[in-house]
Amino acid sequence: MIYIDRNLATPIYQQIYEALVSDIASGALKAGDKLMPSRKLAEDLAVGRNTVNKAYQQLLAEGYVQALQGSGITVNKMPSSLSEVPKAKNAKRKENVKEDFAYDFAYGPMDRNAFPFGVWRKCMNNAMDLMMLKSSLAYPPRTGEMELKEALASYLHRVRGVVASPEQIIITSGLQYNLDILALLFGDSKKRFGMENPGYDGVRPMFYNAGYDVIPIELDEEGISIEALKKEDLDLVYITPSHQFPTGAVLPIAKRLELLEWAEETDTYIIEDDYDSELRYYTNPIPSLQSLDNAGKVIYTGTFSKAFAPITRTAYLVLPMELLDKFQRLHGRYNSQLPVLHQLALADFVESGEYERNVNRLKTVYKKKESLFRELVDELFGDKIELNGGDAGIHFLMNVKTNLTADELINRAAAIGVKVYSSEAEYLEGLYDELPYPQLVVGLPTVPMDAMRKILIGLRKVWDLE
Amino acid sequence: MIYIDRNLATPIYQQIYEALVSDIASGALKAGDKLMPSRKLAEDLAVGRNTVNKAYQQLLAEGYVQALQGSGITVNKMPSSLSEVPKAKNAKRKENVKEDFAYDFAYGPMDRNAFPFGVWRKCMNNAMDLMMLKSSLAYPPRTGEMELKEALASYLHRVRGVVASPEQIIITSGLQYNLDILALLFGDSKKRFGMENPGYDGVRPMFYNAGYDVIPIELDEEGISIEALKKEDLDLVYITPSHQFPTGAVLPIAKRLELLEWAEETDTYIIEDDYDSELRYYTNPIPSLQSLDNAGKVIYTGTFSKAFAPITRTAYLVLPMELLDKFQRLHGRYNSQLPVLHQLALADFVESGEYERNVNRLKTVYKKKESLFRELVDELFGDKIELNGGDAGIHFLMNVKTNLTADELINRAAAIGVKVYSSEAEYLEGLYDELPYPQLVVGLPTVPMDAMRKILIGLRKVWDLE
Repeated sequence: MIYIDRNLATPIYQQIYEALVSDIASGALKAGDKLMPSRKLAEDLAVGRNTVNKAYQQLLAEGYVQALQGSGITVNKMPSSLSEVPKAKNAKRKENVKEDFAYDFAYGPMDRNAFPFGVWRKCMNNAMDLMMLKSSLAYPPRTGEMELKEALASYLHRVRGVVASPEQIIITSGLQYNLDILALLFGDSKKRFGMENPGYDGVRPMFYNAGYDVIPIELDEEGISIEALKKEDLDLVYITPSHQFPTGAVLPIAKRLELLEWAEETDTYIIEDDYDSELRYYTNPIPSLQSLDNAGKVIYTGTFSKAFAPITRTAYLVLPMELLDKFQRLHGRYNSQLPVLHQLALADFVESGEYERNVNRLKTVYKKKESLFRELVDELFGDKIELNGGDAGIHFLMNVKTNLTADELINRAAAIGVKVYSSEAEYLEGLYDELPYPQLVVGLPTVPMDAMRKILIGLRKVWDLE
Repeated sequence: MIYIDRNLATPIYQQIYEALVSDIASGALKAGDKLMPSRKLAEDLAVGRNTVNKAYQQLLAEGYVQALQGSGITVNKMPSSLSEVPKAKNAKRKENVKEDFAYDFAYGPMDRNAFPFGVWRKCMNNAMDLMMLKSSLAYPPRTGEMELKEALASYLHRVRGVVASPEQIIITSGLQYNLDILALLFGDSKKRFGMENPGYDGVRPMFYNAGYDVIPIELDEEGISIEALKKEDLDLVYITPSHQFPTGAVLPIAKRLELLEWAEETDTYIIEDDYDSELRYYTNPIPSLQSLDNAGKVIYTGTFSKAFAPITRTAYLVLPMELLDKFQRLHGRYNSQLPVLHQLALADFVESGEYERNVNRLKTVYKKKESLFRELVDELFGDKIELNGGDAGIHFLMNVKTNLTADELINRAAAIGVKVYSSEAEYLEGLYDELPYPQLVVGLPTVPMDAMRKILIGLRKVWDLE
């Protein structure tokens, strides 16, 4: 029985369709039964014949019924489970539980005051104007918009000495996707991936996932130990020479050259993560390994997350020429990761010099914060706290000379609304346990300067370091 | 010898630094040699002492020199290769060669007139306003912005019957990245991936790359053959039930239910690619498999590329609840793929109903194009050309009854400036060669209606079908 309710928002043909589906599901209409001719049903319901036809077409398209030459529209045989089709229920929302901290020493987030809202809005609107001039809106180039790759090639050359044509640059939405690409490119190797220990824990999963052995390489005071490297047989090694994560060590030029010699001799590729090289406060950025590499063994990677903002989700990979064919073969069917508009805006931002202005502004802000924090720690904690690696980038290490464990430090800080982080995740093979004192990894981007003294006095108290 | 040129744009400290590096590289300054005290050098060069100190600090930071207590600054021992450090040369640009076609029957690009520039600009600016209110700019949620996931959950429920909470939705930048995630999630299985034959060739590389066997499953007239499926032992199978790619077949309801029964019985997961389900011209979209699934065996995937624009690079994956923990474990360290601003704008676009208005506008445009094209093909080619699957989406198949090969059709069309495509890449195991006639896959988005007659008359001539 079909009942039409003209007061409902549901279109009438839809009501007819639903009533018939319901009859078929309940068995009121059985396999082989004929539907009423559309003209007749239209009369009965006092609706237009097209309305009924539309409902019938829908049933036909979905296979509930079939139209046989000369015998009208008949109901198809349905599996018994049709009657169990669930009524779609409204999706339930589960709220994320957010912990409540007044201050957070995370190094990832960014001070919102450091984001150039006005400039970025202008870049986005310019990009929109540019896009309106395009003749068609096709799938964008797989490795990124040429405008952005050109702007980056020129910027990286000038600021980091990187020698690369735009074709060598691949735009992605983050370090992890860069690493996925590299894990794929070296998938036919011995699958031995080396990385600094301690080193950034966020790079391990991509290589674990791709079936690699992850080999920890120890550090000396200047960064990765080349002696230790030489003992291993690797396909590729991930390092952070400009500002070792997390120790902050800077690889000196002599070691850079030695490293490149080793890479060439042993045919090992180096992944150079230059992630916050631009944020050096006291000296210029040190030339990248890529700029010193004659043998095409350095794969350069960087992001806009630190010196622009993590919310932009933009990273880049500079591949040596020799790897481009392989990249094309293995990754050629993946589409570009970033919206075209975003890429064009970013190209404008870099090309116009606004990006560099922003880097300089950030440096000034972070340097002031870093100096004040260092002074306050010195004043309030003396030699009970040692800070490492704060002359660049947005994090440093804090060795707390106490008998408390890192977990106790974290929990006691949490009790006064302050979030701090252990560096334990960055260490492999139990190396963290060999440290004489608990170690925290500290970032200042979202910590206000005028609250620092108060926070540190609070920590001193709850950490029993008064 | 240090020579300062005050007319250069290069800062003076940089000139000093470069001169000293050059002296060290050439051997003019050897290991153990002392640098001139900064005060003295500053006097000699008539520059400020801070300028010299800045140059020295840079040399120290990079390890060219060291500062020993009481003995000033001395040059370090350098490996011999230092002298070979290349002068960074300007990156060279290689122009992409673009073929010149007046008309292109690609199905991927979009008619630029169909893009809602004004609305999208408004959404972007609204998103910027919203972002300015955020307290910090942290790394965004790994699976996407909650605003967008909520808008999508509600939209997909209403339009496609998809039953999912926002937590089950993962926002990515394209189908390929969805498939990478799935290849990872099923990496501990037998690694047997089934897909329609013919089927979308763009899904194979992700599973090949992850070491899967790709098992082609034959079709019958209604889409994937369930009989053929039942003969295979699979972990997961990729299908396009709403509009089979490339044949255009629509899987009827009875087969949908049978498929779900099979999936439950055999513990096989179904990847339902609902890629252009919204663009049906003559009937409503057919309910998704996901909406009929009681057993949690359907993984739903879709994109904004077809019904909004490919330049937005946005796709989504709806995971069954049972897979969420595994996803978190294996993919939890990957960051969100899309800029926050873009996600917020898209949430606004969907939430406000603008997306649906856009889909309806597109349907109207595409339906008109499709009707005209069909009429013209009928008029100009009669039964020499057969069209399939054009009642939905943005592509259909064209069987050309000729003795020419597909390559000949393509080349002859190119000679008159028209780009057409063979469907051969979509077929596995030589199935294409069994077709009686060459088959093209045809899209109309960028082909202007007023040029269609001219183009088809041209093709009829060069294809010898007059």
